[in-house]
Amino acid sequence: MPAKLDDIDRRFLDIAFEEAKAGFDEGGCPIGSVLARGDKLIAQGRNQRVQGGDPIAHGEMDCLRNAGRQKSYKGMTLYTSLSPCMMCSGTIVQFGIERVVVGENQNFGGNEDFLRDRGVEVIVVNDQKCIDLMARFIHEKPELWAEDIAEDEVD
Amino acid sequence: MPAKLDDIDRRFLDIAFEEAKAGFDEGGCPIGSVLARGDKLIAQGRNQRVQGGDPIAHGEMDCLRNAGRQKSYKGMTLYTSLSPCMMCSGTIVQFGIERVVVGENQNFGGNEDFLRDRGVEVIVVNDQKCIDLMARFIHEKPELWAEDIAEDEVD
Repeated sequence: MPAKLDDIDRRFLDIAFEEAKAGFDEGGCPIGSVLARGDKLIAQGRNQRVQGGDPIAHGEMDCLRNAGRQKSYKGMTLYTSLSPCMMCSGTIVQFGIERVVVGENQNFGGNEDFLRDRGVEVIVVNDQKCIDLMARFIHEKPELWAEDIAEDEVD
Repeated sequence: MPAKLDDIDRRFLDIAFEEAKAGFDEGGCPIGSVLARGDKLIAQGRNQRVQGGDPIAHGEMDCLRNAGRQKSYKGMTLYTSLSPCMMCSGTIVQFGIERVVVGENQNFGGNEDFLRDRGVEVIVVNDQKCIDLMARFIHEKPELWAEDIAEDEVD
C-alpha cells in the first residue's frame, strides 16, 4: 500500500515527478528530484545524461548541484521520483541529508537499507504515476537505462 | 611504506596531483583525478566547489563528468589525489570502476573497505606531495574543507 504523505511531501514529490516527466519529454532518463527544508523548496533538478551529456547528473545529483554550495544539509529532505542508486545514496550519506522521500522502488531500488543503516529516514511512496513513467521508459529505451545505471543489460 | 607504482600508475597519479595543485592555485579544494584504461588517459578533472560553485563536483566526479557518457567502465582505473568520500565511493561502485589508485588517505579516508568489500581493487600510495598539499589546504582553509565534506567542524 502506498505511504500516506502530508501536503508538503505530496507537493514536492509531485514537483519531482514533473521534473521526471520533463526529462522524458526531452528524450532523457525520466528521474526528477527536489531538495527542501520543511515547506521551503531549495532546488529541483532532473537527470541530465542525454540533455547535458553528463553521466554524474542523475536526478538527485542535478538537484543538489542546482542547490549550490550549502553550509549544511541538516533538516533537509530530498525527494526523488525513483529510488536512489549507489552514487546518489553515497551522496545523501556524505552530505548528511537526513530524510529521503522515494517516489517508487518497483523499477529500481535496493539501497534503502544502506541509507537506513546510516541514520537516514527513507519513505517509499510507490506512487503509481512514478512507477508508470519509469516502466514506460525502461520498456522504450532499455539501452539508455542500462547505460544510466552502468549495467551491461537490463532484465 | 608507500606502495610501489609502475610507470603508468605513477604518470597518471602525477597528473591527478597536478590537477589538485591547479585547484589549490585557483583557491579551490585541491583534489584532482584521472580516469584511464591501461595507458590511455580518458579524462582528468579537479574539485569545482569554489571555481564552479558546484557541491557535487569533487575531483573524482568532475573527472567522470569530463569523461562524458561511457558504455562501460570495465578495465578502467580511477586515480585520485585523496581517498574518495562516500559520494565518490558510491559512484565508483555504481559505475563499476574496477580499480582505484589513491594518492593518500592520511588527511581523509575511511571508505577503502567499503570499496574492497564490493570488489574494487584499491591501492593506497600515500604519496608525500599529495599528503603535504592537502595538509596545507586543511590548515589554511578549514571552513572550506569542512564544507566540502559536509562536516560541522574539522578536527
